[in-house]
Amino acid sequence: MNSVFNFSAGPAMMPKAVLEQAQQELLNWQDQQTSVMEISHRSKLFMELVTQADKDFRQLYNIPDNYKILFLQGGARGQFSAIPMNLIGEKGKALYLNSGHWSATAAKEARLFCDVDELNILEDGDTLKIKSLDFTGIADQYDYVHYCPNETISGVEIFDVPEVGNTVLVADMSSTILSRQIDISKFGIIYAGAQKNLGPAGITIVIIREDLIGRARKATPSIWNYETQAKSDSMINTPPTFAWYLCSLVFKYLLKQGGVKAIEKVNQAKAKLLYDYLDQSDFYRNTVAKENRSLMNVTFTTGNDELNAKFVAEATACGLQALKGHKVLGGMRASIYNAMPIEGVKALIAFMQKFEQDNK
Amino acid sequence: MNSVFNFSAGPAMMPKAVLEQAQQELLNWQDQQTSVMEISHRSKLFMELVTQADKDFRQLYNIPDNYKILFLQGGARGQFSAIPMNLIGEKGKALYLNSGHWSATAAKEARLFCDVDELNILEDGDTLKIKSLDFTGIADQYDYVHYCPNETISGVEIFDVPEVGNTVLVADMSSTILSRQIDISKFGIIYAGAQKNLGPAGITIVIIREDLIGRARKATPSIWNYETQAKSDSMINTPPTFAWYLCSLVFKYLLKQGGVKAIEKVNQAKAKLLYDYLDQSDFYRNTVAKENRSLMNVTFTTGNDELNAKFVAEATACGLQALKGHKVLGGMRASIYNAMPIEGVKALIAFMQKFEQDNK
Repeated sequence: MNSVFNFSAGPAMMPKAVLEQAQQELLNWQDQQTSVMEISHRSKLFMELVTQADKDFRQLYNIPDNYKILFLQGGARGQFSAIPMNLIGEKGKALYLNSGHWSATAAKEARLFCDVDELNILEDGDTLKIKSLDFTGIADQYDYVHYCPNETISGVEIFDVPEVGNTVLVADMSSTILSRQIDISKFGIIYAGAQKNLGPAGITIVIIREDLIGRARKATPSIWNYETQAKSDSMINTPPTFAWYLCSLVFKYLLKQGGVKAIEKVNQAKAKLLYDYLDQSDFYRNTVAKENRSLMNVTFTTGNDELNAKFVAEATACGLQALKGHKVLGGMRASIYNAMPIEGVKALIAFMQKFEQDNK
Repeated sequence: MNSVFNFSAGPAMMPKAVLEQAQQELLNWQDQQTSVMEISHRSKLFMELVTQADKDFRQLYNIPDNYKILFLQGGARGQFSAIPMNLIGEKGKALYLNSGHWSATAAKEARLFCDVDELNILEDGDTLKIKSLDFTGIADQYDYVHYCPNETISGVEIFDVPEVGNTVLVADMSSTILSRQIDISKFGIIYAGAQKNLGPAGITIVIIREDLIGRARKATPSIWNYETQAKSDSMINTPPTFAWYLCSLVFKYLLKQGGVKAIEKVNQAKAKLLYDYLDQSDFYRNTVAKENRSLMNVTFTTGNDELNAKFVAEATACGLQALKGHKVLGGMRASIYNAMPIEGVKALIAFMQKFEQDNK
């Protein structure tokens, strides 16, 4: 059997070692003769898992003590609703920075619950490039400023942190989390669906500065009320225990790899290989400005829909899976999250070279 | 290794055959060389799984064609919020029938979003017994009537369906679903967290009559807007794919066992064994009226907290796990969901007999 590499944008590849451990202990976890998914979330052993996961994640991402970590349900899209419900206060409105599909979708959902001002932060023109991120002059009109540091569909990443003065900064880090080091203290809330770098689909992490807990409007579902969940160890209802368990294994695995500092280096090396190859090719094209190229989602196209479809079909046949771009953009997308080994990127480049030669 | 039986109320036991299949194919699903949790929810193979799961569940539970089945996130408690958001209309209020902890909790959450009238449907006295269920005289004042056919904590089950005339009837069937046959056509909405009879924690099934779709208020999170989700195959965001996959395996497993008709017979036999034993004992006590005894959650006590604690500890040591009653009630609780074999109930009774002899 040849190696298979899965470039899915999410649900994405998981570390093989994690899946192997999960497989090995699926019917007998911690010598209990039952599966981890069959035991009470309030049992001693599961509470130990949860406590350790909090500790490991804190260490991995360098999370300050004045932040709580919540493990919730509903995905990042659930948080699109939960954030205005929990954060809108006296000012009554929020600023959403629009850098593409996901930041725009977050703004659209927030409009169901509050007034939203939306600012396009992409430069005009064919190249995807982020404008200045200094919002200190306007940010204090808003209860919070929201942005998405990685637009998974277009492959645009925002490496600088927007300047918002004392206003609360909120970030959808679904495709950024644990991929590189960040200064958590600059953020009020960071949230992320798990299905890229954390674990399987079905669990959502919210990192929240403690002073922002307790501001929810009355009409907030209790599973998304940050105060309720912070007081209940994220267990106001039965949590997705198996997904939580898998996240806990991923944290341990990443710590063993040297933590986010070491992983960031590997991610930079993986992305560099692929972008360097794209830059020297006149067959493939990537339209993102160099300073905003995503470390996690590398988009490219041949400029020809038929040829793109052929590329995807032949790559799949060679064990390079899920390279089709998102339907709103077309072309190709290689998602190279933490679990993708550099060998996968090398195999992709080798295939791209051959495809270029054969189809030029 | 002795047999272990897990009486957890949820996350509950899963069928062993399902876990074994999941284990076997955890790293290589459908010959894809990847895990089912690593592939796109929109991929052809996963969409096939979802289509088949809908078909199997429809067959298993005899669901009429004018009902949609949604697979959502957030648990039954998420639906406590989603239901008023989606169903409150002109009348502006809902009637909640209170039969214990969970129906009361649903009412409390609904009050965040609408006016709620609450009716206690338990008779006065020490025995837990449900009053008359004829609400035809008052139901038309309400947009819907909500109840919980199985109170998991106290072990009270409501076998008759409340009469509500033409008003929409909504039922939290988390602990009832697939345990016995019901006439779906009497209900507007049936919802259930998966972690008892359907699959692992982290996925929630909503069975909804089609004419009730499309009534949501503006301020409804899109992941809980029944119209949005019905139009998107329950995929407005990334769904909990692995939990969905496990549900699909449970459906197939239950069909193989002869469907709900056959399972209901086994469940009745299991419950009868246990209640008959309790009735002839003057050491243990169950306080639920015979006509309202739960098929799924059998509660009992020795009447002495110390002795109860000793019972739970010794049972655990004998491989009879998770028999401690819910903290709001104390005592013991044996949850005997579909996956519990009759051998588990027999082993429990044998232990109870011995414990009675030793501690009388």
